[in-house]
Amino acid sequence: MSRSKLRVGIAGLGRMGKRHAVNFHQLTARAHVVAACTPDEEERKWAAEHLEGVKIYRDYDEMLNEELDAVVVASITAVHAEQAIKAINKGYHVLCEKPLSIDIEIAQSVVDAYEKSLQTHPSQKVMCGFSRRFDASYREAHARIANNEFGLPIIFRSQTADLYDSSGFFVEYAKTSGGIFVDCSIHDIDLMLWFFGEDTKIKSLQSVGVTAVHPDLQASNDRDNALATVEFEGGKIAALYCSRMMAAGQEDITELICERGMVKVNSQPRKNHVEIHDSLGARRQLPQHYYERFREAFVTEAHEFTECCLENTTPPITLQSSVKAVAIGQALQRSMISGEKIFFDERSVKN
Amino acid sequence: MSRSKLRVGIAGLGRMGKRHAVNFHQLTARAHVVAACTPDEEERKWAAEHLEGVKIYRDYDEMLNEELDAVVVASITAVHAEQAIKAINKGYHVLCEKPLSIDIEIAQSVVDAYEKSLQTHPSQKVMCGFSRRFDASYREAHARIANNEFGLPIIFRSQTADLYDSSGFFVEYAKTSGGIFVDCSIHDIDLMLWFFGEDTKIKSLQSVGVTAVHPDLQASNDRDNALATVEFEGGKIAALYCSRMMAAGQEDITELICERGMVKVNSQPRKNHVEIHDSLGARRQLPQHYYERFREAFVTEAHEFTECCLENTTPPITLQSSVKAVAIGQALQRSMISGEKIFFDERSVKN
Amino acid sequence: MSRSKLRVGIAGLGRMGKRHAVNFHQLTARAHVVAACTPDEEERKWAAEHLEGVKIYRDYDEMLNEELDAVVVASITAVHAEQAIKAINKGYHVLCEKPLSIDIEIAQSVVDAYEKSLQTHPSQKVMCGFSRRFDASYREAHARIANNEFGLPIIFRSQTADLYDSSGFFVEYAKTSGGIFVDCSIHDIDLMLWFFGEDTKIKSLQSVGVTAVHPDLQASNDRDNALATVEFEGGKIAALYCSRMMAAGQEDITELICERGMVKVNSQPRKNHVEIHDSLGARRQLPQHYYERFREAFVTEAHEFTECCLENTTPPITLQSSVKAVAIGQALQRSMISGEKIFFDERSVKN
Amino acid sequence: MSRSKLRVGIAGLGRMGKRHAVNFHQLTARAHVVAACTPDEEERKWAAEHLEGVKIYRDYDEMLNEELDAVVVASITAVHAEQAIKAINKGYHVLCEKPLSIDIEIAQSVVDAYEKSLQTHPSQKVMCGFSRRFDASYREAHARIANNEFGLPIIFRSQTADLYDSSGFFVEYAKTSGGIFVDCSIHDIDLMLWFFGEDTKIKSLQSVGVTAVHPDLQASNDRDNALATVEFEGGKIAALYCSRMMAAGQEDITELICERGMVKVNSQPRKNHVEIHDSLGARRQLPQHYYERFREAFVTEAHEFTECCLENTTPPITLQSSVKAVAIGQALQRSMISGEKIFFDERSVKN
Repeated sequence: MSRSKLRVGIAGLGRMGKRHAVNFHQLTARAHVVAACTPDEEERKWAAEHLEGVKIYRDYDEMLNEELDAVVVASITAVHAEQAIKAINKGYHVLCEKPLSIDIEIAQSVVDAYEKSLQTHPSQKVMCGFSRRFDASYREAHARIANNEFGLPIIFRSQTADLYDSSGFFVEYAKTSGGIFVDCSIHDIDLMLWFFGEDTKIKSLQSVGVTAVHPDLQASNDRDNALATVEFEGGKIAALYCSRMMAAGQEDITELICERGMVKVNSQPRKNHVEIHDSLGARRQLPQHYYERFREAFVTEAHEFTECCLENTTPPITLQSSVKAVAIGQALQRSMISGEKIFFDERSVKN
Repeated sequence: MSRSKLRVGIAGLGRMGKRHAVNFHQLTARAHVVAACTPDEEERKWAAEHLEGVKIYRDYDEMLNEELDAVVVASITAVHAEQAIKAINKGYHVLCEKPLSIDIEIAQSVVDAYEKSLQTHPSQKVMCGFSRRFDASYREAHARIANNEFGLPIIFRSQTADLYDSSGFFVEYAKTSGGIFVDCSIHDIDLMLWFFGEDTKIKSLQSVGVTAVHPDLQASNDRDNALATVEFEGGKIAALYCSRMMAAGQEDITELICERGMVKVNSQPRKNHVEIHDSLGARRQLPQHYYERFREAFVTEAHEFTECCLENTTPPITLQSSVKAVAIGQALQRSMISGEKIFFDERSVKN
Repeated sequence: MSRSKLRVGIAGLGRMGKRHAVNFHQLTARAHVVAACTPDEEERKWAAEHLEGVKIYRDYDEMLNEELDAVVVASITAVHAEQAIKAINKGYHVLCEKPLSIDIEIAQSVVDAYEKSLQTHPSQKVMCGFSRRFDASYREAHARIANNEFGLPIIFRSQTADLYDSSGFFVEYAKTSGGIFVDCSIHDIDLMLWFFGEDTKIKSLQSVGVTAVHPDLQASNDRDNALATVEFEGGKIAALYCSRMMAAGQEDITELICERGMVKVNSQPRKNHVEIHDSLGARRQLPQHYYERFREAFVTEAHEFTECCLENTTPPITLQSSVKAVAIGQALQRSMISGEKIFFDERSVKN
Repeated sequence: MSRSKLRVGIAGLGRMGKRHAVNFHQLTARAHVVAACTPDEEERKWAAEHLEGVKIYRDYDEMLNEELDAVVVASITAVHAEQAIKAINKGYHVLCEKPLSIDIEIAQSVVDAYEKSLQTHPSQKVMCGFSRRFDASYREAHARIANNEFGLPIIFRSQTADLYDSSGFFVEYAKTSGGIFVDCSIHDIDLMLWFFGEDTKIKSLQSVGVTAVHPDLQASNDRDNALATVEFEGGKIAALYCSRMMAAGQEDITELICERGMVKVNSQPRKNHVEIHDSLGARRQLPQHYYERFREAFVTEAHEFTECCLENTTPPITLQSSVKAVAIGQALQRSMISGEKIFFDERSVKN
């Protein structure tokens, strides 16, 4: 594949779809957004205004008939897998928003489709977009540990904690999100697999949760704050925290405690470089949403996915690990609801 | 009791005993250290040099025959309960180093002795010394939450993490310490009871641990790093971390996440107000030991215990909560070793 | 002017020219780099590889014959003014790297040319690129003060402090840079005018300097560290610091102390969100160069300059203030060398 | 001198006098406050209640007739010198609050009296109490630089910035304080001498000031915010800032920029280890007054002064340097009022 530019189609133009469209269209020199599709009329209007020179489709299948090199799947989670598989089967590269599916078997079917397709398209790339892997700070942390600066990583602690939203969004969203561990903690789980090694086996996991500020989450068997521990073979352990109740902003924090040192990422969340001193003391603002914190990581993701496709190099995230992340998230969700500790069955969930 | 000065006897002159002796003798205006005892000859020599005007005994029982108002029990843990009970039975006020005992029944016997003694000495004070309750930062955090500044506290996260010690001290110490959750996390557990309410009932707890840098701890059924979750009735949850592996120093951190805000204590551990910028970046030092961080809290503890005794006011820590803290620590230790989640039996451990 | 894209020519492809070229070419949706020129053969080779579809010229005048809407002057300082004036005279918009010139009369001649050209090209934009005005943190600081959150700003303190460079670069550079106050502090001076008001009159200024690590700077009448105070009419004062000796990285810090509060920008310089804890304590890295810190500001600058040109809106920096900034920098440089306090002659320097 | 305890008399029981009395009486094991004096009846009442066993005098001269070893002069500045000289002439050790006097000749007369007295009392100690020299953070900074960890110190930057006080206190106080540079910056000047060396010669100094929030200071020829630069022989420079306008609290910050590194003290002023996250962002409190920040330094000062007297060791501050600090403060005050840069006359002010 010697094209100088990657022809990209964007599936879905909701919040994340718009961002991917702009990132690939305007900020990724070697990508060229050829087409985009969405069933939503408002979104198509937005596209007509903002995506100059891009063909806009209502129907995903029609868009696939364009001459494309790659598809970015950024539609609603329920169709991620189906759309990904269709694109895979056409031999297109695929960048799919997380998660592949909140159903493990469906998620695995994407991997299976990809593995089969690889036999005829050996340079095809399919990647699930875990944005933190493209964040400069996480990358520095990972590089230092990989470089053995502090000995083996032993303890992984990580949290995804969203700003409190009084609009009822989280309650509505919980009906289809797969639950707080599948929606929020999936990022922490992916990082855990990245830092500890994607092949590391889980021995057990356990979680507890509460509904402190969104009691209606109970109806969806979900919680607004939860804590978990995960135990790995080989003497590694992890603690996770997820929340929908932060008062100051997005507080996504990760710590890797190693034999001879520790790396913290985001331990002092901050929006920018401003500090205010007034009668309330000295204060800083926090990012209000994950995109405010991780915007640059998404741009990097677009760049690197594009490079991998054009240069036929290995993407930084294996597709199988994205299925494993969902499996772990679901197990944590089950433990939170049942109250039981789960001694992970590696066979059934491809741990 | 209208004495203007509290006559104090110090039992034990090891590391903490020496500190208590100096704090009461030199830094507590209304206390007067009359006597001290230790079976250790070196320690008695130290006392002769440093505790001017204090009678030094080899034998605890003999010291008790002095005219005292209060006894500070700072000897080895194994004799805490016995010495405390003897002093209680003489009607003396008692400040006992934590824990009362690593055996719950023995710990409870101190409470029982105190309750019985109160019938004849209604103004007698017996308190277990949990130093963090006297730390100015923890107090501000507690006051703000008690003042309902952020709504109900929902999530408690806390850690006690010691600097790595290559001398083998921790391995030796583990033989009698009761384990990392009873030794280290006891402070976090006490804080948890303080912030959530000493009457809050535990529903379940669970912990996992590893031996990363002190493999010989396995022989004592102990670990050098452990994580736990605790679930309370009424929609509160907690996460604990304890460690013997810190590379930079003592990292004791606590977070209270409330409905409308969060209070963090020590989240940026620092030794002092110095920051160094050089070719390594910008850095600060951390306290190397808990006493470096909490020295002032111990002085405040001495002051306040003295005031409670002289003014017949209520000490800030109930004795029963100190037994409960040990019970929780032991349950966490059992969970860590067995791998099982424990659904707490409130009857047997007086939860 | 109703073009949807701004046709841009880039003059100079050195370090900053390359960055401007990429920022306008790849990261600014409404800009289209049509041409670039440089007398340097290596730079033209780089352009052929990296600036797809851009015509590359050796000669500036030839490039100007292209159909352009705007020119970015990023060549060596000595030709800034000449190139800017030529572009102005062709009616092109101009974004000129700072400073316009280190000679005030030459700098003023650019303003004069612009004012004359405006009579025939009333929507022409000419702006000197002071990147910090486009930085999100500085903007928040400015907006809060403009919004009167803290009362009037009274004290301005600011520094530009470069990482120590052992290569001799600073010594060589000093021969033509105009001196440390014109080269480094020009940013702080520009911010000072922005925060205090571009019309604010200076009453006096004074500076002192040393050569601590680059003694050869003496030959160019320059220093490697200098301190200044500036006094304004209306009860405002400022302190500046500039340095070529930082050990940890770029330390560009600004503080606005107002009647009822203070805003600090960059007071804790940090490269990213990583903190490392090891035997040296807890540390973070700093940006090593200004571009590492201000990269995004340059991209924003490209966006906004483009928007101003296409939408005929007012650029955020007046050209006259850029001349005033150079005049102040030169006066500080003179004071540093002579040791004399200067009671600013507003007439001669258009204060 | 083989006494085990130092018999101390306290002159003055105002705000600082009370603190010294308590620090020496209750917190300094080897000191014994024998007597105290104050012309103020309320203060004598306070003493009767709080200074158990201490003889209380109305008259300073009468108190001097007690058998004392040392006198702490903590009365109003106007009588510091007179009282110090009387105690010196009786052969007593003296710890005198800063400044000795705001009149250089009077200040020098204390040094002269001490030098004369030393001929007959060779182990007599007389020290002016500059509390920051006893602060653990400043000491670490000084030790690291003395230890040559970062090469020579080149730039000294320091500020003393008080919380805004709306009561009119600063205006009243300015009538006798000697001005903001003599009152506030005296600490920074003392630190400057300590870090650069007490023998370092000043070449020039210059300052500018404003009255932003306390316009009535003009009547006393004082200002509420001021900036200064100081130039030393040997290639060292300093910048000072003093303020009475801080909104968040006491902001006393010092930086030593050295050839190969920098040490910052207090660069992130903080009251304690608490951080609050709520809808306003993440914030910390600041100390509200210098004593809240430096309380421990005063206790250390009491300890060390006592040790120096009892053990006949050299106090950490020379008396002559305290006169020099006042001379520099006065010169800065003059420069601020006159607007002139001062080329320091070393002969007249014993620079």
